[in-house]
Amino acid sequence: MNKQNEIKVTFQPSGRSVFALPGTLLLEAAGRAGVALQTPCGGRGTCGKCRVRIVSGECPPSAADLQALSAEQVQQGYRLACRTYIVGPLTVEIPAESLFGGAQQILTSHAGRSAVLNPVIRKTYFHLDPPSRDSAVSDVERLKSVIGEVTIPFHLLQKLAGFLRGQNWQGTAVLAGKRLIGLEAGDTSATAYGVAFDLGTTTVVGTLFDLVSGQEKAVASTMNPQVSFGDDVISRISRIRENDGALAQLQQSALTAIRSVIQKLGEQASVDTRHIYEVAIAGNSTMQQLLCGLDSSALGEVPFVQAFSSALTISAQTLGLPVNPGGEVYIFPQIGGFVGGDTVAGMLASGLDKTGEATLLVDIGTNGEIVLAHNGRMQATSAAAGPAFEGARIVQGMRATAGAIEKVILGEDVILNVIGNARPVGLCGTALIDAAAELLRKGLIDETGRILSADEAPDGISPALRARLIEINGQVNFLLVAAEVSGSGEPVYLWQKDVRELQLATGAIRAGINILLRRAGLEPADLGSVLLAGAFGNFIRRNNARRIGLLPQIACRRIHFVGNAASLGAQLALLSADERELASQLGRTTEHVDLSLDPEFQMEFGMAMMFPENDVDACNDVR
Amino acid sequence: MNKQNEIKVTFQPSGRSVFALPGTLLLEAAGRAGVALQTPCGGRGTCGKCRVRIVSGECPPSAADLQALSAEQVQQGYRLACRTYIVGPLTVEIPAESLFGGAQQILTSHAGRSAVLNPVIRKTYFHLDPPSRDSAVSDVERLKSVIGEVTIPFHLLQKLAGFLRGQNWQGTAVLAGKRLIGLEAGDTSATAYGVAFDLGTTTVVGTLFDLVSGQEKAVASTMNPQVSFGDDVISRISRIRENDGALAQLQQSALTAIRSVIQKLGEQASVDTRHIYEVAIAGNSTMQQLLCGLDSSALGEVPFVQAFSSALTISAQTLGLPVNPGGEVYIFPQIGGFVGGDTVAGMLASGLDKTGEATLLVDIGTNGEIVLAHNGRMQATSAAAGPAFEGARIVQGMRATAGAIEKVILGEDVILNVIGNARPVGLCGTALIDAAAELLRKGLIDETGRILSADEAPDGISPALRARLIEINGQVNFLLVAAEVSGSGEPVYLWQKDVRELQLATGAIRAGINILLRRAGLEPADLGSVLLAGAFGNFIRRNNARRIGLLPQIACRRIHFVGNAASLGAQLALLSADERELASQLGRTTEHVDLSLDPEFQMEFGMAMMFPENDVDACNDVR
Repeated sequence: MNKQNEIKVTFQPSGRSVFALPGTLLLEAAGRAGVALQTPCGGRGTCGKCRVRIVSGECPPSAADLQALSAEQVQQGYRLACRTYIVGPLTVEIPAESLFGGAQQILTSHAGRSAVLNPVIRKTYFHLDPPSRDSAVSDVERLKSVIGEVTIPFHLLQKLAGFLRGQNWQGTAVLAGKRLIGLEAGDTSATAYGVAFDLGTTTVVGTLFDLVSGQEKAVASTMNPQVSFGDDVISRISRIRENDGALAQLQQSALTAIRSVIQKLGEQASVDTRHIYEVAIAGNSTMQQLLCGLDSSALGEVPFVQAFSSALTISAQTLGLPVNPGGEVYIFPQIGGFVGGDTVAGMLASGLDKTGEATLLVDIGTNGEIVLAHNGRMQATSAAAGPAFEGARIVQGMRATAGAIEKVILGEDVILNVIGNARPVGLCGTALIDAAAELLRKGLIDETGRILSADEAPDGISPALRARLIEINGQVNFLLVAAEVSGSGEPVYLWQKDVRELQLATGAIRAGINILLRRAGLEPADLGSVLLAGAFGNFIRRNNARRIGLLPQIACRRIHFVGNAASLGAQLALLSADERELASQLGRTTEHVDLSLDPEFQMEFGMAMMFPENDVDACNDVR
Repeated sequence: MNKQNEIKVTFQPSGRSVFALPGTLLLEAAGRAGVALQTPCGGRGTCGKCRVRIVSGECPPSAADLQALSAEQVQQGYRLACRTYIVGPLTVEIPAESLFGGAQQILTSHAGRSAVLNPVIRKTYFHLDPPSRDSAVSDVERLKSVIGEVTIPFHLLQKLAGFLRGQNWQGTAVLAGKRLIGLEAGDTSATAYGVAFDLGTTTVVGTLFDLVSGQEKAVASTMNPQVSFGDDVISRISRIRENDGALAQLQQSALTAIRSVIQKLGEQASVDTRHIYEVAIAGNSTMQQLLCGLDSSALGEVPFVQAFSSALTISAQTLGLPVNPGGEVYIFPQIGGFVGGDTVAGMLASGLDKTGEATLLVDIGTNGEIVLAHNGRMQATSAAAGPAFEGARIVQGMRATAGAIEKVILGEDVILNVIGNARPVGLCGTALIDAAAELLRKGLIDETGRILSADEAPDGISPALRARLIEINGQVNFLLVAAEVSGSGEPVYLWQKDVRELQLATGAIRAGINILLRRAGLEPADLGSVLLAGAFGNFIRRNNARRIGLLPQIACRRIHFVGNAASLGAQLALLSADERELASQLGRTTEHVDLSLDPEFQMEFGMAMMFPENDVDACNDVR
C-alpha cells in the first residue's frame, strides 16, 4: 500500500494518530485509533452524540452538522464524526462526553465495537478473620464468606487449610467466573494476564493483555506448523482420515505454535508467563478441533459435522500450555460445518447483529466465511474459495511479501505498486483482483473471463496496453512486467489460467453470498453494509472486488473494513464475560447453511463465475 | 444389535426415541427412553395406571385394554403400556398422570426411613440418528438431543466422535446427575454398581449395591489401618501436627482399607469392580478429611475447625480407587468441629427431622455425637467420651470379642453372659454399664460412684454379693469372676477405677445432651424419642444406660435402636439423589454446638458424672 496517498489524523487528548485515505469517515478513523465514539443512532447523523472538535485542518461542515449542531458549535469546529469525510490532515479533539461508555473502562476494537472491561479471570485479595469462639465455620465457608460462592477444585481444597494458616489468613484468590483456580500468597491482585489467539490455518497470532487494565501488552505470531501437513484444512483432514497418528501430530503442531507464541509474548512484554491465567482461542472448526485433539474426520465428508458447538473451557495443563498451572483455555463456540469459532469471533467484533440493517460479514480466505444478519436472523456459510487469493495456484502468484505486486492500475500503460520497494517478481491476491478489474474496465477481458487478443481489443486502448496482450500457446495473457525490469529476469504475466482460478474463487464466495441473500429474501441493494474481515479482506480494493463480482453491487461507502475480526473477537471474549456470553448466544442462534447441501449452489456458482457486465457505482476510492 | 430389525418408538411430549425389537413390551421401551410409568399393580394389567395414548402407528387393543379402559378411551388410542407389545413404529403420548409419581421402587432402611430408588448414577442406552442432510448438528448436540443436557468432560469429548461412528451411533451413556462420566459400547444400562462406606475410626464397612435394582449385593469390612497411628482421632490429629509425612501416610492407610473392601465386595458378589461407578462415604470429620488428604491440624486446637462443610465429589481416579475410571467419590457434608459426615448420614437414616416431636439422636462411641431436633431446629454436638465404652482404659476391659463379659445381672449372686461361649477374661462396654447399673440398683455404689465396702453394703444384700466387695490397696472393687473360673486364671473385677472412667464417659455424653436440651428450652421429659445409633448403641441395655445417667429419664419404649445409621445414611445417599440433597440440607441447617466453648459445660459435666439417685421408669426390657 502506498502511504503517500494517506492522510494523517491525530486525536486529542490521547495523541493517537492514524493514516487514512481521502474520503474515509472520521468515525472509522477514530475507531482505528482505538477511540470509540458514542453512536446510539447507528451513525445516521441524527443524535449528535459523536460530535468532535476540529482543532486544525480543513473540514467543512456537512448538512448533518448544520442540522444537528448549533451555529455556534459549528463555528467552534464541532462536527459529527459519523458524517465527516476526511479530505486533508486533521487534529481532532474528542470531548469526554462523546466517548463510548462514560466512566467505565472501555475496550475498543478496530471494528468499532466496544465493550466494558469485565474479564472472566478476576483476582481478589482477601483478609479473613481467623477462627474464634464466635466463628468456627470450616475453612471453605470462611473463604466463601469473603470472596463469594465459588467452586473449589480438589487440589486447591487440599491446599487450603495450610495456605490460610501459613499466610496468616490473607492472600489472593484467582477466579475464573465462579471457579477458584488459584491461591496466591500476598496481594497479587494487580497482576493478571491473558492471551487472545487467532488460530489460523496458516498463521497463529497471539495478543497479550493485562487483564487488570485491559491494555494490550504485546503481539506475536508464527506460522502454523501444520502447513507441513497441507496448506488447507481439507488436506489436513485427509491426513487424519488416512493416518492414525496424524491427529496427535497435528494437535502437537498447533500446540507447539501456541506455546511458542506465548513464550514470545512473555519475553516481549517482560511478563512471567505463570501470570497468564487464560488463553482465549478463535479458529476455524478444523483448527479448533485439531488443537483439542478431537477427531475431525467428520469434517471430511458430507454432511460436514463438527465434534462440538458450544464453547469449551479446558485446563491449560491438559493442553500443556506454559501458563499458570491453574490457567484455563477458552475455545470459541462453533456454528456448523466449516463455520467455526473464528466466524463467531468475527461476528462478535464486527457487531453485525447490532447494525439495525441488513449486514453482510465476509471473511475472504481459502475458506470464505459469510454471515448475513437481517431482522434479527443470522445465517452463516462457508465457501471453498481455494488459495487463489493467497497467490497459490496462480502461475506467478506469491504471498504478499517483498517483490509481490500488490496493486495494479491501468491508464495509458500499467502502473504497479510493489511491496518492499523491490523489483516485481510475481503478484499477490490484491493485484490479481486489481488486474482483472482494470482489464474488465478497459474491455480487455470479456464477461466469460477470456482475455482478448491485441486484435480484439477495443479501439480506444492505448498502444502500450495493446502491446501487453500476448498470445502464448493459443491463449492470450497480459504482460504486467517486462523481463528487463522484473526481479527475476522473467516477464510477469496475468495468465489466462489465473483469470480462471480467480473466477473459481470469486464464484464460490459470491454464490455463498447470493444464496444467503436469497434465503433472506433480499436483493444486494437491500444490504445496508458489507463488512470485510480477515487479513486479505483488509487489503482488498473495494471497487475492484465489486467490479469482478466478488462483492455485490453496492456503494463503496457501505463497504467497511473491520480488521482481523477473529483476533479482535478473541480479545473481546478474553476481556469481557459479557462478550463471551454474547459469543455463546451468536453461536447458538446463527443458522448454518451448508452450501454442499443446497440444490441451487451449482447453478449459483456457475453464474457467479461470470464477471458482471458493468459496475454500478462509480465511486473513486482507490482501495 | 441389528438396527434393521428394530422398530422406532417415539415418546411425547419429551420427543425421546428408542429402537426396540418387535414384541418388546411398550412399558420396557418407555423405561429405556427414560420414561418411568406408574405400575402399582406390578404390570399385571389390572390397575390401569400405566395407560398411554398411541398417536400414530399400528397398535391393536389387548384384552386387558378392553377390560381396564373404557370403550371411548380405547377408541381415543389409550392402551396399557404393561400389556402392549410393539409390532410397528409408534408415536406414543404419555399423559402426566401415568408418569411415575411415588409408586416406583422404594428403599427401606432398618431405621424405618424409606426412599425412592433414584441414584445419582444413571445409565442411558441411546441410539442416535446418524448425520444427514436434514440434521448436521455437532456430535455433542446430537448426543444431548437424546440423553438430555449434560456436561461432557474433555477426555470424553475427545473420545466422542470416534465412539459414535465406531459404534454405529449407539451405546450407553453413564451419567452422574447432569455430568457424563462414561461412554460404553452396546447396551450396558442394566449393569451399574455402587458402594456405600461407613468409614469409622476403628472399622471400615462397605456395602455393594446394584444401582439398577437397588439391591444389596455384598457387605465387607476391615480394620481401619490408621489404628496403628493411634486408637482415636485425637492421637491421629496429633500425629499430623507433629510429623510432616503423617498426613500422607494416614490418607494412604484409609485408602488402602477402602480399596481392599472394594476388592472384597467385588469378589463376594462376582461383580467386576469396573462396573462400580460411585462410592459414597460417610465418616467423622477427621476420617473424611484424612481420606481426602486434607490437613486436619485445625481439628486439634480450639475452636475445632473443619476444612470443608459442603459435600465433596471427587474423581475416583484422584483417590486411586479400583472402580470405573470415570467413577466418582461422594463425601458427606459436615456440620462443624467433630460433628462430621457420619452424623449427617445418621440423621438422614434416622429421619429425626421428620418425627414431629422433640427427638434426640445419640451415637455413643469414643466421640459421642448428639443431635437434637425440635420444632424444625436441629442442633448437633460431639462429646469426647473417651474409649471406656470400647473397653479401653478399663483395668480388665476388652473389645466385644470372645471371652468378653457382655452382660451382667445381679440377683442373689452374679449372672454373666460371655461372648463366644468361652470362659470370661475381661469385660466389654455393655458389661461395664450393666455392672454399674446393677450395683446402683443394689445400693452397692453410691451416687458419687464410690463402691461400698462389704461393711457399708445395705442390709438386704445377699452374702454372695457382699463377699464380692473386696478391698485392694484402700479401694473397694467388685469381683465379677473368681480366678478359678476365669479364662485367664486371674480374677476379673469391676474396679473402682473403672467406675471413675465410666463416670467420665457418661458425664461427657450426658452433659452434651443436657446442654442441647437446655438450649432448646426442653426438659428430658419433653423428649418424644431417643434414637440410639452406632455399633455400641445397638448393644446397650436401655434401662441400664438410663440408670447410670447416660440417657435421660424417659420411658424405655421411647428409646429406639436405629442400627448403624451412618452406614444406612451412606446407602441412602448412594441410592437416591433426593436423599443426597436432603443430606446437604441437613448439613447446612444443623447448628453446631461446640461444647468446649460452652461456659456451662464444665459444670454440666461435673454434675452429669454423678449417678442418678433413682431410675424413674421400671420398664422390664433387658437390653
